[in-house]
Amino acid sequence: MTQDPTFKLDPRLAETTFDWGLAAPGLNLRLVNDSRWPWLLLVPQQADVVELDDLSPSALAILTKQAAILAAALRTVTGAPKTNIASLGNVVNQFHLHIIARKPDDLAGAGPVWGHGAAVPYEAGAADVLHQALLGEISPVGETT
Amino acid sequence: MTQDPTFKLDPRLAETTFDWGLAAPGLNLRLVNDSRWPWLLLVPQQADVVELDDLSPSALAILTKQAAILAAALRTVTGAPKTNIASLGNVVNQFHLHIIARKPDDLAGAGPVWGHGAAVPYEAGAADVLHQALLGEISPVGETT
Repeated sequence: MTQDPTFKLDPRLAETTFDWGLAAPGLNLRLVNDSRWPWLLLVPQQADVVELDDLSPSALAILTKQAAILAAALRTVTGAPKTNIASLGNVVNQFHLHIIARKPDDLAGAGPVWGHGAAVPYEAGAADVLHQALLGEISPVGETT
Repeated sequence: MTQDPTFKLDPRLAETTFDWGLAAPGLNLRLVNDSRWPWLLLVPQQADVVELDDLSPSALAILTKQAAILAAALRTVTGAPKTNIASLGNVVNQFHLHIIARKPDDLAGAGPVWGHGAAVPYEAGAADVLHQALLGEISPVGETT
């Protein structure tokens, strides 16, 4: 998908996440700054997308393909056996897809992570370590920079 | 997608939902028996699918296309402005996609519905009324039976 020049990231998403660039053209990958769970967001860079069905068929296909790739990679690099994937939008209306690595003994247990206490920001450098590990998992050797 | 003959629906999903047949070949549509929220499940009838990335590319495409169609239809027939779409699997591992109609003033407010109190079963006939309304919305005129 191509980036819509009128797209503007919701400031609540901008403030609570790290920008990890593009997962595909027009599809922004971000990390939620909450070290309790490895938690990615995919944000299509198109204005006025709120619901899954607001996306074009091609944009939806790109989104879900990248979600599947990233979910598998996130489990590999974190050792988590499970991923939660969701578009909720109960708080921030702008469409964003959550991809969250889950372990049975994590802080939310068998429950959802949304609304669970307060975020614990990453310590200096820790998010970059995760980013590099994820890039190493999804990119062919030699193309990870 | 075609149905896998070795597929067997997890009994915890069977016990808590109504069977609404097929949304597409090999893709079961179900209604969660909790009248607090209009809440659909899509269950690919394939054994050993736990994660989104366990699905084949074609099965993933069919799943997301049907999710988009059903989410839009569910908002129309319920008047809810929002849908939550998610694969979690924190409790039941067998892959199932949630499609939940949400209103800002519903019982969970801005929070997620999972783990929110106890289900309130539908009264007799109420689930069928919702089913017929949904079929009327997604099927061409004359093909709703």
